[in-house]
Amino acid sequence: MVFPPSKAMALALDAARAAAARGEVPVGAVISDAAGQIIAAAGNRTRELHDPTAHAELLAIRAAGAALGSERLIGCTLTVTLEPCAMCAAAIAAARLDRLVYGAADPKSGGVEAGARIFSHAQTHHRPELISGVAEAECAALLKDFFAARRD
Amino acid sequence: MVFPPSKAMALALDAARAAAARGEVPVGAVISDAAGQIIAAAGNRTRELHDPTAHAELLAIRAAGAALGSERLIGCTLTVTLEPCAMCAAAIAAARLDRLVYGAADPKSGGVEAGARIFSHAQTHHRPELISGVAEAECAALLKDFFAARRD
Repeated sequence: MVFPPSKAMALALDAARAAAARGEVPVGAVISDAAGQIIAAAGNRTRELHDPTAHAELLAIRAAGAALGSERLIGCTLTVTLEPCAMCAAAIAAARLDRLVYGAADPKSGGVEAGARIFSHAQTHHRPELISGVAEAECAALLKDFFAARRD
Repeated sequence: MVFPPSKAMALALDAARAAAARGEVPVGAVISDAAGQIIAAAGNRTRELHDPTAHAELLAIRAAGAALGSERLIGCTLTVTLEPCAMCAAAIAAARLDRLVYGAADPKSGGVEAGARIFSHAQTHHRPELISGVAEAECAALLKDFFAARRD
């Protein structure tokens, strides 16, 4: 039996599809508060904004901080379609997010289970609860289709 | 004989002092292009902006990308008063900055020579030229004085 992805992941997938439609790498992220209310959603905008830091996760963290009037997102969950890179993983630690949920693994550029493994060394100031593999096939297919179309 | 810090580091120190005056952790960063022209300068604004990603380096990278109309800062140098954290170091790699110059080391929260050592593992996509220890004592004193004053 296959369970549907959570509401948060469904919204993150929507944000990823919207990013693809803008010609951006299709990754989407949402942040929900302790009550499960969505307080921020974003897709990649690195090209549009000429901003190498405009990954979905960073845009969502910035929007959630502004929405809550706090640089710490205590009690919040970040849900993202792809394993965060080292920059985004370290931003998740800086924001003190309670929980990180992600879809597809990213062995090449990820920084959670691959590469810098931001939450896995002694110096890390904060480790969120981690849930991976949610709607993994759908998240990965979006990326695969996007890059396949660009190679044509 | 003690040489004065470079012009870029002098401006980064100015940005750090301005951050301290705003009640922010005194770290400052500037980005110069291949001709040595300063194209962006920023100090920490995490509290003011309620944004955990608003470190001096990230704000400078975003401003430089906007100034150049490019998400890649080819040929550019980022000069910062403190060793970048893992988030900022990974952003420097994403921006493809040619060179990173920094002042004081940060054994607790740094991500270059400490902790995640972003540029030192096989998965890193980009390694900038690295120069550390520039105006180290002055950069470190700013931070030490700031935290000492807050403990009083």
